[in-house]
Amino acid sequence: MKTRFTELFGIEHPIVCGGMTGVGSAELISAVANAGALGFLTALTQPTPELLAKEIQRCRNMTDKPFGVNLTILPTINPVPYDEYRQAIVESGIKVVETAGSSPEPHMPDFKAAGVKVIHKAVAVRHALKAQRLGVDAISIDGFECAGHPGDDDIPGLVLIPAAARHLNIPIIASGGFANGAGLVAALALGASAINMGTRFIATHEAPVHENVKSQIVANSERDTLIVFREFHNSARVARNSVSEEILRISQEEGKSFEDIAHLASGRRGREEVLLKGNMEDGLWWAGQSQGLIHEVASCQEVVDTILKDARNIILERLVPTVDTRPEPVL
Amino acid sequence: MKTRFTELFGIEHPIVCGGMTGVGSAELISAVANAGALGFLTALTQPTPELLAKEIQRCRNMTDKPFGVNLTILPTINPVPYDEYRQAIVESGIKVVETAGSSPEPHMPDFKAAGVKVIHKAVAVRHALKAQRLGVDAISIDGFECAGHPGDDDIPGLVLIPAAARHLNIPIIASGGFANGAGLVAALALGASAINMGTRFIATHEAPVHENVKSQIVANSERDTLIVFREFHNSARVARNSVSEEILRISQEEGKSFEDIAHLASGRRGREEVLLKGNMEDGLWWAGQSQGLIHEVASCQEVVDTILKDARNIILERLVPTVDTRPEPVL
Repeated sequence: MKTRFTELFGIEHPIVCGGMTGVGSAELISAVANAGALGFLTALTQPTPELLAKEIQRCRNMTDKPFGVNLTILPTINPVPYDEYRQAIVESGIKVVETAGSSPEPHMPDFKAAGVKVIHKAVAVRHALKAQRLGVDAISIDGFECAGHPGDDDIPGLVLIPAAARHLNIPIIASGGFANGAGLVAALALGASAINMGTRFIATHEAPVHENVKSQIVANSERDTLIVFREFHNSARVARNSVSEEILRISQEEGKSFEDIAHLASGRRGREEVLLKGNMEDGLWWAGQSQGLIHEVASCQEVVDTILKDARNIILERLVPTVDTRPEPVL
Repeated sequence: MKTRFTELFGIEHPIVCGGMTGVGSAELISAVANAGALGFLTALTQPTPELLAKEIQRCRNMTDKPFGVNLTILPTINPVPYDEYRQAIVESGIKVVETAGSSPEPHMPDFKAAGVKVIHKAVAVRHALKAQRLGVDAISIDGFECAGHPGDDDIPGLVLIPAAARHLNIPIIASGGFANGAGLVAALALGASAINMGTRFIATHEAPVHENVKSQIVANSERDTLIVFREFHNSARVARNSVSEEILRISQEEGKSFEDIAHLASGRRGREEVLLKGNMEDGLWWAGQSQGLIHEVASCQEVVDTILKDARNIILERLVPTVDTRPEPVL
């Protein structure tokens, strides 16, 4: 498929695997690249900038196709050496970066100087507009359906994508709720040039997570997510399990502070226990509503190929026949 | 455009104006019908079954195209003579009914015997499946974006429509978040056969509401709605104004009962004051997130024509060029 996204970034298919902390390793991202899509290693998954440079090299050993690095900028208790991570990205010859979390402004001059294209992840049209003014090359706009942090506006893609498309002139990557070819066609119709998928790529053979996580995504329906931490303006969409249900109950019923809740959450053994050991009730883990549309674990190549094949069929066999394609009469 | 919906219901375009209490009068619904879409008078907007029969006749005097009647079935303090409303619908020769609120089961035998097709409005796949088992002819599936009652699952159309399409074999009308041609194409890609629009049809010249309401819809962005009454399992998406903000604040901060909140809401002069007199801060009124996609008041004919023209262009000029349309090689 050919779109503004594929042309601008030199990627075969309009499909992105955006940054996922703890999941975006070389194994997954090289498989995404080999399938002709654009994947992002996650910088902060690597404990130091040096290890990030090594992970980039490891990924490059597994694919000769382009891939990017995600740089998520968040306030943290222990300062993160963002400048050094950025330097590692640039010096490794990476040509596309996904920024997320807060404004990419401090990083733009270096990236631009190095010819690195920047895709900024935004959850609202006003944030996307600000990033466009800062000179980013594309916006990944994240709807209410998404795993992780959807913000607090609660605007799903059906409305958010066309609202963004009306205001932006740079390409849009539609994110949140996408897992199949129908979604890709819908996104293109709504004004996007590509889709981003997270949950779908976790349920692949190559994702470095426990098989239980993949099976759970397949088993879960679209109703099996919860939004936690809303009361603290830190909304996060996570899989429904005993931990997320308990956090939601306690947040709502007893008016606890964020510290109390964080204490409760960390009292459990946490996300690594889920993702790496497959103990599904032992921590919070992110999942998007798209899990209701995921019915099998497959390879990244199969996922991408099926989406492209289905999208083509939907356009040519479902949509074109609905319109009268004869030229409109001149008189 | 030709879809399963247009074929089954004998309607020119795959566009529906579903039932809107207090708004679905003969003026609006005849204009929708004359534009080639399918509109629904709202039975309970008429105080008696006799007046509903008169309204049907009045609508028929304004159009010779088909239209339907919405029958919303809700628990009420004062019993509603549903059987008599149903009888008025059947005896008036109406051939398509939209049911909503609760199960259409008690009404199905009479409608089926009279050859009336039934479209049931559902907010969840499990409710849609139940209605399909009861023999309804189509499902109008209402996503999280919609005005009025979205239920409590919070599943937007991007996920809800394909989830429903996977399970249902009767045609699907996608509802919630739709206002333009891009949305129509997205809905068809996701597996629906038509779109339903409420808020878009309120911002038309023919809608029997005050001009202030129409201007407000145009002025509002996608962020200018709120969900109230969630605490009471009666979630309703309404326009953001001082009344809805106050209700939300009081519901959340002071733990009031539904009776307290209802008392507060009714202490204001109410929805009629907004819709008929244009006093926009005097009551709650329903609005969908699609208002962020509505940029002008227009006639129903203009709305429908523009959607059809845009949808055609999106399919033929935006989507088809993304795919290689040469036949795949045989060898």
